[in-house]
Amino acid sequence: MAERVVIIGGVAAGMSAAAKARRVNHQLEIVVYEKSGYVSYGACGFPYFIKGDVSGVEKLIARSPEQFAKDGIQVHTLHEAIAIHPNSRTVEILDIRNRRTLTDHWDQLILATGAHIQRPPIPGSTLAGVFSLRTVEDALAIKGWLETQQPRQAVILGAGYIGLEMAEALRAHGLGVTLVEQQTQVLPGLDADIAAFAQAALEKNGVGVMLNAGVNSFIGETLVRDIAERVAGMLEGRDGTSGRAVAEARNARLSVREAVLGYGSLSADIVILGMGGRPNAALARQAGIALGATGAVAVDDQQRTSIPGIWAAGAVAEAYHRLLNRPIYMPTAPVANKQGRVAGTNAAGGQAVFPGVLGTSVVKVFDLTIAQTGLTEKQALQAGLRANSAAITSSSRAAYMPGNASLHVKLVYEASSQRLLGAQMVGDASVAKRIDVISAALQAGWSITELSELDMSYSPPYAPVWDPVLTAANIADRQSGKVQG
Amino acid sequence: MAERVVIIGGVAAGMSAAAKARRVNHQLEIVVYEKSGYVSYGACGFPYFIKGDVSGVEKLIARSPEQFAKDGIQVHTLHEAIAIHPNSRTVEILDIRNRRTLTDHWDQLILATGAHIQRPPIPGSTLAGVFSLRTVEDALAIKGWLETQQPRQAVILGAGYIGLEMAEALRAHGLGVTLVEQQTQVLPGLDADIAAFAQAALEKNGVGVMLNAGVNSFIGETLVRDIAERVAGMLEGRDGTSGRAVAEARNARLSVREAVLGYGSLSADIVILGMGGRPNAALARQAGIALGATGAVAVDDQQRTSIPGIWAAGAVAEAYHRLLNRPIYMPTAPVANKQGRVAGTNAAGGQAVFPGVLGTSVVKVFDLTIAQTGLTEKQALQAGLRANSAAITSSSRAAYMPGNASLHVKLVYEASSQRLLGAQMVGDASVAKRIDVISAALQAGWSITELSELDMSYSPPYAPVWDPVLTAANIADRQSGKVQG
Repeated sequence: MAERVVIIGGVAAGMSAAAKARRVNHQLEIVVYEKSGYVSYGACGFPYFIKGDVSGVEKLIARSPEQFAKDGIQVHTLHEAIAIHPNSRTVEILDIRNRRTLTDHWDQLILATGAHIQRPPIPGSTLAGVFSLRTVEDALAIKGWLETQQPRQAVILGAGYIGLEMAEALRAHGLGVTLVEQQTQVLPGLDADIAAFAQAALEKNGVGVMLNAGVNSFIGETLVRDIAERVAGMLEGRDGTSGRAVAEARNARLSVREAVLGYGSLSADIVILGMGGRPNAALARQAGIALGATGAVAVDDQQRTSIPGIWAAGAVAEAYHRLLNRPIYMPTAPVANKQGRVAGTNAAGGQAVFPGVLGTSVVKVFDLTIAQTGLTEKQALQAGLRANSAAITSSSRAAYMPGNASLHVKLVYEASSQRLLGAQMVGDASVAKRIDVISAALQAGWSITELSELDMSYSPPYAPVWDPVLTAANIADRQSGKVQG
Repeated sequence: MAERVVIIGGVAAGMSAAAKARRVNHQLEIVVYEKSGYVSYGACGFPYFIKGDVSGVEKLIARSPEQFAKDGIQVHTLHEAIAIHPNSRTVEILDIRNRRTLTDHWDQLILATGAHIQRPPIPGSTLAGVFSLRTVEDALAIKGWLETQQPRQAVILGAGYIGLEMAEALRAHGLGVTLVEQQTQVLPGLDADIAAFAQAALEKNGVGVMLNAGVNSFIGETLVRDIAERVAGMLEGRDGTSGRAVAEARNARLSVREAVLGYGSLSADIVILGMGGRPNAALARQAGIALGATGAVAVDDQQRTSIPGIWAAGAVAEAYHRLLNRPIYMPTAPVANKQGRVAGTNAAGGQAVFPGVLGTSVVKVFDLTIAQTGLTEKQALQAGLRANSAAITSSSRAAYMPGNASLHVKLVYEASSQRLLGAQMVGDASVAKRIDVISAALQAGWSITELSELDMSYSPPYAPVWDPVLTAANIADRQSGKVQG
């Protein structure tokens, strides 16, 4: 009899696991349970769908359940796993549409339940008009709110990647936007000197930035009945939308009007919870699967959990940081896709290893591109390393070329060994792939001198004759006193 | 008494050497002799100046002789070195402006005489209207010809980087353009399958491409006297222009009208010699300095020539290829700048090493960007390596994002070891820095598996969730049969 692989969660990690398991073993039974109405979607595209760059949410969906079915992968949407029983190798599933519970058996179980945004435990956080953005339903609900309610003032909690992307999206619709961030800077994952570029770009584009600030409560007002009906109707019109979301919209009585801070309040007829996601690890914990120090599921480099036969991948799991030499929580799409492939391969009897992350990421902030890889100076110091940094401002192209833009590079390196520890960059779109050059240097374990020896491509439309990466490496090299002469 | 460093040639390599020598040693006497009227210019910008992207040729000049003088670097333009005497440590210089010869003494000599385009030994190749493009004077002469003569038909000999860039520049002025290439493909340095993309882009933009073709002669017609005067006048009007160029323009009697091929002829009222440059090595040879197999000056990794006290850098010299493990001829601006710095450092008593090249380069062909690093499949086979390749077509951004464009990646790797040997890419501007990621992988000596493990940045405006580089590495990995399961 064929082995049965059950996958809980059908977004990036889960569907990557399913597709890869099928390629590795054509005999397997593969079943996916997904609690939302959609699978295989690119959640990173939501801000661009809401902004209007992407015409329909269906464009964000890579493959439908019907397409997976052709590969012999059974996908059940609106099916939520509610308990895992490792001893009997079963999982209890709630069929949301039909309000009934079923039990399925597995030989291999892949946990890909993703992450959620924790609603802040403050009054009014469940008011209509307060949104998080993780699922297709969330994206449709925000888009529907914009169309039907025509909000004019937005408050976004959290100035991380999603917060900044949503600020841009909502400004594109003409809303007034205020970002409220508890920490002392936007993009708290970056060094403060780099985050300052993002703040300047936000402010230049009319986004208010409040730092060291938090919301104590949201105040609502009676929602016009008609609007609640229209939002519910829009949601119902979309194929596969959760009945729960429709019911919630229909039952909404109060919509958000105001965000109250410690010292004053902001009017707000839409609120986006833009804080970082937290792992959906409750199911794992109840099943006795070990969690790591980050609160996400602990996995080895083959995506094994502490229970044999159970694998975890994506935003529910930790990811090993290759420089910090310990697991971190990095709930991004590439990590989910890669870990999903590894989990799918191994669950199917193959052999694959996830090599870990370097923390490489990039975000668009209006016309600016900001990227990082490896450790920030702050992280390096926190990790107990003696870190130096070198920062330069150069240009993205030859200085005389049209379209040339300023490009800022900050390198972080170990003072004693000159070993490169990380980089942050700010500039035009070229930053996204220039940061990957440094990611490669980190994977290779290079010193700043070795980075300075890199043979980089040159032509006036693409770079100055000394690429900013090389200029930064040369400056770091000179500053470290190791340079010739 | 301070040592005297004489530098012959004041473009990229020479002026980099001068500036670096000054930084390393503040006591040195530093003298530069440059035979043209200009120093420290970015020759790679000429096609963009001619096209009109760059408003004036002065924008291409990084620093003037006066600015160098402030750093105690004496620059003599229109001074051509005509003989080097290693025994007496002297150099004979022709002062072109004053038609007199002088002798200078050196303790250290840096040879940075660059390259030239060999006029084909065919009738008519010295007609007015037949241009090469190495110097500021060349660029001004072409620009002047376009303005005064208003040519309508261009023939470009050679479909290398300069040939293609000039095709784009001349099409922008509305000229009909035919590229004539002796080999069987455009961009002969690339594999034929990659060059085909360039040819398609050229043809889509109205450039005629003739392969396996050569010009036997150029036929001229009497040049209207008035036009010769106007070109001469324009040249005279520019500061520092060589009297020789002015005299040549004024004396021109015949201008090009037709290019005669083996089988027919092309009308042409402007001809660009777009063939690759050859080293200006005659001076070195006469001085007894050893040349390498490429015909350029042989240098060690400190830019030493065979004669103590004489260094060479830039397009007159060879460059060590880190994968081929032998010197090649690669007359590009980054190599010139880097070798110049190394020669300047060492001539000034410092210690620097040029680590060699990987053949990384990029060219814009209308809306297409084409780049390479390491070995092509052709080069790998020629080098006696058993090479495999993997090619994929993916996209530059998330497929659903506006501005997304097709992106083609070809990886070349050693069949036995899976060691990466090179890559070629075609797509949008992002190709220029994506190729550098693979340059880093080559410097690190990675296998295709190691490349597939790279942590690359992701956000929908910049990449698909699997970057094309990773997709190509995964395909190569799978194809090599090494993959899991």
